Formats: sequence, C-alpha cells, structure tokens
Amino acid sequence: MSRTGRRALDLSRGQIDMSHGAGGRAMAQLIEELFFGAFDNPALNREHDAALLARPEGRIVMSTDSFVVSPLFFPGGDIGKLAVCGTVNDLAMGGGVPKYLTAGFILEEGFPLADLQRIVESMAKTAQEAGVAIVSGDTKVVEKGHGDGIYINTAGVGLVPEGIEIGGERARPGDVVLISGPVGDHGVAIMSKRENLSFGSEIESDCQPLADLVAAMLAAVPETRVLRDPTRGGLGATMNEIAQQSGVGIELDEAAIPLRREVKSACELLGLDPLYVANEGKLIAICPEDKAAALLSAMQAHPRGRDAAAIGRVLEDDRRFVRMVTGLGGTRMVDWMAGEQLPRIC
Amino acid sequence: MSRTGRRALDLSRGQIDMSHGAGGRAMAQLIEELFFGAFDNPALNREHDAALLARPEGRIVMSTDSFVVSPLFFPGGDIGKLAVCGTVNDLAMGGGVPKYLTAGFILEEGFPLADLQRIVESMAKTAQEAGVAIVSGDTKVVEKGHGDGIYINTAGVGLVPEGIEIGGERARPGDVVLISGPVGDHGVAIMSKRENLSFGSEIESDCQPLADLVAAMLAAVPETRVLRDPTRGGLGATMNEIAQQSGVGIELDEAAIPLRREVKSACELLGLDPLYVANEGKLIAICPEDKAAALLSAMQAHPRGRDAAAIGRVLEDDRRFVRMVTGLGGTRMVDWMAGEQLPRIC
Repeated sequence: MSRTGRRALDLSRGQIDMSHGAGGRAMAQLIEELFFGAFDNPALNREHDAALLARPEGRIVMSTDSFVVSPLFFPGGDIGKLAVCGTVNDLAMGGGVPKYLTAGFILEEGFPLADLQRIVESMAKTAQEAGVAIVSGDTKVVEKGHGDGIYINTAGVGLVPEGIEIGGERARPGDVVLISGPVGDHGVAIMSKRENLSFGSEIESDCQPLADLVAAMLAAVPETRVLRDPTRGGLGATMNEIAQQSGVGIELDEAAIPLRREVKSACELLGLDPLYVANEGKLIAICPEDKAAALLSAMQAHPRGRDAAAIGRVLEDDRRFVRMVTGLGGTRMVDWMAGEQLPRIC
Repeated sequence: MSRTGRRALDLSRGQIDMSHGAGGRAMAQLIEELFFGAFDNPALNREHDAALLARPEGRIVMSTDSFVVSPLFFPGGDIGKLAVCGTVNDLAMGGGVPKYLTAGFILEEGFPLADLQRIVESMAKTAQEAGVAIVSGDTKVVEKGHGDGIYINTAGVGLVPEGIEIGGERARPGDVVLISGPVGDHGVAIMSKRENLSFGSEIESDCQPLADLVAAMLAAVPETRVLRDPTRGGLGATMNEIAQQSGVGIELDEAAIPLRREVKSACELLGLDPLYVANEGKLIAICPEDKAAALLSAMQAHPRGRDAAAIGRVLEDDRRFVRMVTGLGGTRMVDWMAGEQLPRIC
C-alpha cells in the first residue's frame, strides 16, 4: 500500500487513465511511485509545485524544449533521454553549466505504465550523467486519440561562469568553425527505425549530454565565441542562423565535414541531404583563428569530441551567405532548408 | 517580405503545417513574425536556444506546468492566459517573485494561425500584467490527429526574498486557514462552455496572476507559512496535500467558504462538488493565529483578494484528516478526490 492508501501501481500491465491527470489520489500515487523514485533529489521531494533552490553564483541561462519524437524508442536512445539531452545541451550552448531541469508530461489515455517507467528511468539516468537535478514536474492526461502516447517538455536553468560570453551574434570574419563529430546520426537512426530499414550495422542516434565537453572546451579556450547544437534543420540551418545573427558569411569545406559511411549510404537511399539531418549529440564551435588549434585539441581529447574537425571559416559578407566548397572543388550555396524535411525528429 | 525572404504569414487565413516545426525557414518565420512580436524583451531577442539572464539576487524557485485545457477559449480566459497564470502562480506560492518564463508549444497540423496569434497575444498581455518576461521558447508540430490544436508548457523562475520561508510542510496546530475568494469559478466556467450550458449570467473563470497579491500578503505578514493555489482537485485535494505534508489535521467551516450563488447552482446541475472544482486565480494561505487578522486585512485590501475569508484551522491529528463542519452543524470527512472529476480543466 502506498501512502495515499491504494494498492501499488501495476507497472507491468497498467495503463494511464484520465484519473492520473485529475489532481486527486490517482495522480498523487503516480507521481509518488513512479516519478519521485526515479528523480530523487532534495528540491523535488518538497512536494510543492515550485522547487526552492539555492542562490545562484553567477548569471543564469534558461531554455526549454518540447519533445514529440516518433518512435518513442530508437537505436541509441528514447524520448526521455532526448528530453534531458535537448535542454541540457541548449543550456551548455549558452555557455551555462546545466543545474536544474523541470519536466512536463502530456500522457495519452491508455499509455502503458511500463513504457512510462522505462522513459522516466532513462531521464533519471541521463540527468545523472549530465549533472542536473530534475526539481519540478507536471503531469497532464488527454483522452485517447488526442495525443500520441507521450509528449515531454523540459525546461532548465544553468549557471554561466565569469568571463564566458557565448552568442550566435559573436562570429567574426576570420574565425574558424569546428564540429565535435560526424553529422546526421540522430536523424538517420530515427528514419531507419520509422521506415524499418536496415543498413547492415544498426545506425545509432548520437543523443548525449554535451555539458562536460563544453566545460572542457571553455576551460581550454574561454575566448570561444559561438556554441550551437545542430538539431532540427541540421548543420545547414544552424550555419544560416549564425550567419544571420552575426551578419557574416560562412564557407564550409565539404571534404572536412565528418560523416559516417553508413549514414551517407542511408541518406542516399532515403533521399536526405546529411547537411540538414538532425543531430542530438554534436556541437558547432566558432573561435578566433589563433585559438582554433587549442580548441580542436581540447575537443579531440574528450570522449564526446573524439572525431572533432575544423570544417570552415567565417567570411565578411553583407548578404550573410553560407557556401560550401564541394569535393569536386566547386562552390554551392547552403540555403536554409525551405520546408519540411524530417517531421517529429525530436 | 520578412528577413527570411518569404511573404509575410497569412495570419487571418493561414494554418500550421508540418514545415512550421521542421527547423527551417518556415519555422524561423513563424517565430520571428508571431512570437517575437508578442513576447518582446531583450533576453528573448538574442535568438538563441538559451536565454542569458542577470545574476539573481537571492534564492530561486522553479516550476513547470503543461496546459491541455479544452475548450481553448472560455469565458474569462484562454489556454494562453492560463499557461502564464499557472506557472506564475506556482512560483508565487513558493514565496517567489516571478521573473522569467519559458514557453513550449505543441501545435497540430491545420491549427489556424489566427487562433495561435490570439493565444500568443493573450500570453504576452498576461505576462506583462504579472511582471514576467517570456525569455525562451520552442515550437513543435505534430500531424493532424496526433494532438488537439495546441498544447502549451510554461516553466518559470522566481526570486525568493530574504526571510521568506513558505512550504506545504510548515502548517502547525492552531494556525488559521484563509482563502482569497470564492471557489469553483474556473472549473464551472470550463464545464458550462463545454456542455454549452447557460446559467442566466455567464460564469467566468477566475484565471488571474496572483504574484502581486502574494507580495502584498508577505509584506504584511512575512510569517505566512503555507501558500497554495487550489487548481486541479480544488480546495479538497489541496487541503489533503497540506495535511499530509505537515503531518496535521485541518478543520474547515463550510459556511465560511466563499461560493458564488450561480456557481453553486451550476455545480448542483452538473453533479459537481465545488470543494473539488479547480480554481485558477485563488490561493490558500496558512499563518499563525495571531497574524491571521492582519493577513486577512491585507488580502481584502487587494483587488485580487477582496472576498478573502478565514475558512478553517489546523489541528493536531496524526491521521492527517481533513474534516468540514457542515452548515447543519455536523462534521464530514473531506477525502482526496478518488478518481477523475473534470478532465482537461487546465
């Protein structure tokens, strides 16, 4: 029996029903037995709608992301791992050390409790790996047919150390563009699973928290100017955003962009351009030219940046164009992706 | 033409399509033309996934809520106003002065841009009224049939002034229970709209931000021990939560609980117990007996607490029971609500 005087949840065969979102005893039981067990920390256990936290030592960054990925479980991750990594990485890209997350769940009536448990445990494990505490949460339930199993929102707060100034508007002509590893793994892993395709060896999502990699990079090169994770829209959209915000051009070197052979093959088969395929465990860094070698070394010395490479350069260009020197020596424009490419990739 | 080189959004006849969630140009345009216009503030306009904020002066509180209310527009409010009030009020109930919000949108393909604009403008107006800045956001789009028009998540950060210690575990025997106004307005407004019922005059939701009321209360009585907004599960669930967390009993006086005549009639017709109907602009306060008169005066002196009343008392009771002395002089148990009462009320 739980504290609320009910039989324990049947986690192996039970399902979400409308009462789990109604604010009464069933909701209290779900929160107590499933969420508190996984997300154990002093702030959360105050059982208040707001979590009280210590006075932050420094500026803070805040970020949020909702996750609607389909399928919920995929090679290399699941919606829970993705939900923690997504916000942790956004905070890290703001130069922040991620500290606290909130988690909001929109559950569809009939969703298996066993799947919810698996997702929640994956979130807890990833949060621990990323060094963040999940301090406050919320659960809503919608009727069958008005959702898609589970949607998760996470929001987070990180602390920005003194002297760190990161921003998409800080790229300057002459700066070097670095990437922490091969592109396209996440998007292709999702699409392969969705289309039930096999490419010999299974392609895994690169979904991972990047806070420790960023800490190592900023320790080596505090002058780093831009950090950005190329998620939805991939490297192509991210480069255009930075060019736009900094008022510069960017030239990429196609041959230098790391890309796994099997991801390349899968993209050809699926009709995808790897430049626009989502990543969930990679980052772009832009730094002054004279710091690029040190930053690249710091990235390659870290397990999450082993395959890092310098892939381009920032140019003076009022038109804010992103171009790519192709393998054949020509130059092509790297446009914003125009419309839909991969729906529900995160 | 917008900065992204497209025709402006057709806000009167346009609809959400999958490209608005894909990370490319269409998504950038939606964010720029619709969200940035409404949520204008320096932190948001950095156009980065994470918002950089000043170093907070004091402890912080964090909270999150997702909103799935149906219908989206109802007398006295809409899902946007609700999404801002919900999180602002959770922060205020933690003793915090709400400062920053994030907003995550899950949009269904086909959702009218005109409705989205109306909701976003309502959020902006409510945020201004509540004194919070919406500093970071996220937009996802799901296929038609996998959502319900729009779901919104908000998460927030507030600052807790020195000397303020609020918590559901702080009620002590002898303390007085106060409420800021009549119960049940929000739930009944939603149900009336949903069932297309009319009760002579239209019943409006009480949906409103309570941060300024809380500030006035804490200025008058910093010794206030518990603050809680009786949302899902209503007054009944909230009282049980506090009794549970503080390890006390609570006795309510039915005759003292403010309840509008038309809400009472509607509850009788709909078969609802107003004690368990959601409120979105009311709060419960618990304070030491010798401070109760001062706290009640401070509440009644504020426009959002005009109809405040003392409604009960905290008792010593290891069983943590909540009881109510009825109008006829008897006593009944106020249980947790057992299962579903009103689905998708917030």
